[in-house]
Amino acid sequence: MGKKVRTAIEPTRVENYPLWYQQVVKSADLAENSEVRGCMVIKPWGYTIWENIQRNLDAMFKETGHVNAYFPLFIPKSYFEKEAEHVEGFAKECAVVTHTRLEDDGKGGLKPAGKLTEELVVRPTSETIIGASFSKWVNSYRDLPLLINQWANVVRWELRTRMFLRTTEFLWQEGHTVHATETEAMDETYKMLDVYAEFAETYLALPVLKGQKSESEKFPGAVSTYSIEAMMQDRKALQAGTSHFLGQNFAKASNIKFQNAEGTEEYAWTTSWGVSTRLIGALIMAHSDDNGLVLPPRIAPAHIVIVPIIRQEEQRAAVMEYVEKLAAELRAIWYYEKKLVVEVDSRDIAGGEKVWQWIKKGVPIRLEIGPRDMENNSVFMGRRDMAPNEKKGVDVNEFVQEAKKLLDDIQTNIYQKALQFRQEHSHIIDDKAEFYRFFTPKNEENPEIHGGFVRSHWCSSAECEEKIKDDLKVTIRNIPFGEAAENGHCIYCGKDSEKRVIFAKAY
Amino acid sequence: MGKKVRTAIEPTRVENYPLWYQQVVKSADLAENSEVRGCMVIKPWGYTIWENIQRNLDAMFKETGHVNAYFPLFIPKSYFEKEAEHVEGFAKECAVVTHTRLEDDGKGGLKPAGKLTEELVVRPTSETIIGASFSKWVNSYRDLPLLINQWANVVRWELRTRMFLRTTEFLWQEGHTVHATETEAMDETYKMLDVYAEFAETYLALPVLKGQKSESEKFPGAVSTYSIEAMMQDRKALQAGTSHFLGQNFAKASNIKFQNAEGTEEYAWTTSWGVSTRLIGALIMAHSDDNGLVLPPRIAPAHIVIVPIIRQEEQRAAVMEYVEKLAAELRAIWYYEKKLVVEVDSRDIAGGEKVWQWIKKGVPIRLEIGPRDMENNSVFMGRRDMAPNEKKGVDVNEFVQEAKKLLDDIQTNIYQKALQFRQEHSHIIDDKAEFYRFFTPKNEENPEIHGGFVRSHWCSSAECEEKIKDDLKVTIRNIPFGEAAENGHCIYCGKDSEKRVIFAKAY
Repeated sequence: MGKKVRTAIEPTRVENYPLWYQQVVKSADLAENSEVRGCMVIKPWGYTIWENIQRNLDAMFKETGHVNAYFPLFIPKSYFEKEAEHVEGFAKECAVVTHTRLEDDGKGGLKPAGKLTEELVVRPTSETIIGASFSKWVNSYRDLPLLINQWANVVRWELRTRMFLRTTEFLWQEGHTVHATETEAMDETYKMLDVYAEFAETYLALPVLKGQKSESEKFPGAVSTYSIEAMMQDRKALQAGTSHFLGQNFAKASNIKFQNAEGTEEYAWTTSWGVSTRLIGALIMAHSDDNGLVLPPRIAPAHIVIVPIIRQEEQRAAVMEYVEKLAAELRAIWYYEKKLVVEVDSRDIAGGEKVWQWIKKGVPIRLEIGPRDMENNSVFMGRRDMAPNEKKGVDVNEFVQEAKKLLDDIQTNIYQKALQFRQEHSHIIDDKAEFYRFFTPKNEENPEIHGGFVRSHWCSSAECEEKIKDDLKVTIRNIPFGEAAENGHCIYCGKDSEKRVIFAKAY
Repeated sequence: MGKKVRTAIEPTRVENYPLWYQQVVKSADLAENSEVRGCMVIKPWGYTIWENIQRNLDAMFKETGHVNAYFPLFIPKSYFEKEAEHVEGFAKECAVVTHTRLEDDGKGGLKPAGKLTEELVVRPTSETIIGASFSKWVNSYRDLPLLINQWANVVRWELRTRMFLRTTEFLWQEGHTVHATETEAMDETYKMLDVYAEFAETYLALPVLKGQKSESEKFPGAVSTYSIEAMMQDRKALQAGTSHFLGQNFAKASNIKFQNAEGTEEYAWTTSWGVSTRLIGALIMAHSDDNGLVLPPRIAPAHIVIVPIIRQEEQRAAVMEYVEKLAAELRAIWYYEKKLVVEVDSRDIAGGEKVWQWIKKGVPIRLEIGPRDMENNSVFMGRRDMAPNEKKGVDVNEFVQEAKKLLDDIQTNIYQKALQFRQEHSHIIDDKAEFYRFFTPKNEENPEIHGGFVRSHWCSSAECEEKIKDDLKVTIRNIPFGEAAENGHCIYCGKDSEKRVIFAKAY
């Protein structure tokens, strides 16, 4: 390898991937850890990405007939105990409220007081508390389908946390629906998985694989779970969204019954589905480079930043006037049902420093304008999906006219890069020894980056799945949709298998 | 009184105001109590009102330079203890998390386990946890002003709860800002009070009085608190929003310091301000009537509902086609940066029943269309701000053309009604005996409805304030802005006073 190029993020991805991730989050000013174990503070630049995710997903939910509502943060312990697998899955990591006030402890401090007769769990997910309402709302087949979504915070007392990817408290949406028949509930489960896939690909520029989770990886209490899986730049998988077919399990636990058209009472069929602030982690790890965050335009808090280059104080007024006029022109342009967001960075620091800050923040287009550019009616334009030094002078009017197209180009380019990366690191493996070699780090520079997505045969037994997990930390990401049936032999035990599944290491 | 008119809500306001309120909430399908003490479920119709409040207020916050962020739900007990008045104000009613999992209790149930070394308080407000971040974010005068807002849920373990007005968990926004000087922080405090007043009057059609809270009613830890106060139809006041000047109190508690332009380190000046789902309670109690909810168009989940009147099955297809065409035409109309929301109620129930359901839900305009109206190209139109039977036939095309104006008329009319009501029940009282008579229920039909807003002199002593509160449950709502200085005598003790304040019973 040649001379080392200086990068804005240190270490680079190859040098230390986990630390690179932390540095990207920090240098883009997305979030920081708080002193509350595992809880992060989402800073304005990070939160605006979440607002953009919310706004666009919410519109897709509403287009598919869903409405929003809000249910209590606290779940009585007894609700939790109603569904055996569910409680098994969540009781081990939940925040428990036991008292309702603090009082003087006689030593200058405070101690908990007002003990509750029944403890409350801070929701890790809301199937049981929402089920309690649904059992009142649903009486007749005329009340169905019931299509509800909630935007909320949830808490899971995770052992190991990592900003955006796994935090004690996180923000998410959880859809909860009730249907008269199994078929309708299944249709809804698939439909919302499609919505997630479309959202990930269109807005986040994130290619995803849709499929069904294995029995051991499904949601606690569900009949079946479906996921979208994306590949990060360390070739690990990240589960970016899940949709659960709950059968009648939660309807029975929460007593959600309805009278059908014939007058007979039946248990209803329910679904639930969710995505979270984890999507921001996916966005970061899929697209960012060694200079920091790279944002797809359709989710970026700002589309364009203009950096005035002022070397002499007497030029300031004229340059700023020119820049503000250009910004106003750009801000009048509609870009997918929203107007372009244009930042003008007029801070009193060096132009180069500003430019690098915006590179690290991932803004899709940077414009630098100094007195000479002004005279020539041109701007110096840099795209975040290209190298920082690949800047070029362009005519201002042309730029204004082409801005939307340019942003679409960037969006497509980011998507294509991620798709190509996934293709390069996706393999079909039929030999057990090769499979094991593939998922074992070699003498590379960084053992964190290896492996990829592997399509192999699997006999459907939980034992083989577990052995592979124990040996390699590799899991079945999902059983992908649309694979042709094919006879083969389980990659682990060699028994007959009718389908390939996707194996990968994962977040 | 004449013959009793049948109303959709029973009891009526005059018969039993608190029960009427509950019935309005219930029959408009806004919310319901959950089994978790004091926590409500906000149902889709109620939540959409909150979404509309959020969307519009958020735009106003952004226009005034604020950005959103998100801070942890949990506050370490030790943070709480840093500001003496603050902890005094909130420690008595807070949810305390003491454990991090549930485990088998050996009796077939679950018990809390994984005891925390430091208890966590579920945020009742976030000054202390946000202050911990701000102390890191603020270093130099160049970092100021810092203008942050958070949309979040908060928990206060209130003794007596009432849907929307006072619930254990509620949704709100809390602005938190940091400034270099006292003047700038005061300006911000006033500015956000103005934003709240403008929002209340423009969107909620709620006339409000801006003013300063007395010392005993201010926010725990603030230097001064300002409020907007609205009058409900039982003539009680409802505090609809507050803005706090925190001085350097929280900066000292959280160590928020900055280096000024001269290089000296100073404590910063902070503010906080908030409104909550309580605004929905205000909306309900200010405008609703004995037929249910009345919604100002600018905050209504739907602007217009169309009820097809189908008496014979063979008319259905033609009527529905006509109705859907009209709905599509109306939905293409922009109304304040959003398109008109039009509901078509094609459910298979009687037309009259539908109409009454929409009246109870408060939709501003109802259109009924049957085969004959279709032939005449007319619709039967009812306005929610008028009596249910004041319907009239109007030409369809004229209606489409006039729809926006009509909605504006309704908005203005609702505001004017509320303003007139407040004026009718606002008085100047200078005599103590009269003051006491005024605030003592007479032999009226309903002792809940009496009193009003009274402007009286007050000597500024906490003792007089407290005695009036003890005797009459009447409090000083605020010391209103823009009152001319006037010499007078305290309504309680007769000592000299330079200003009148607003007394009322309150929620």
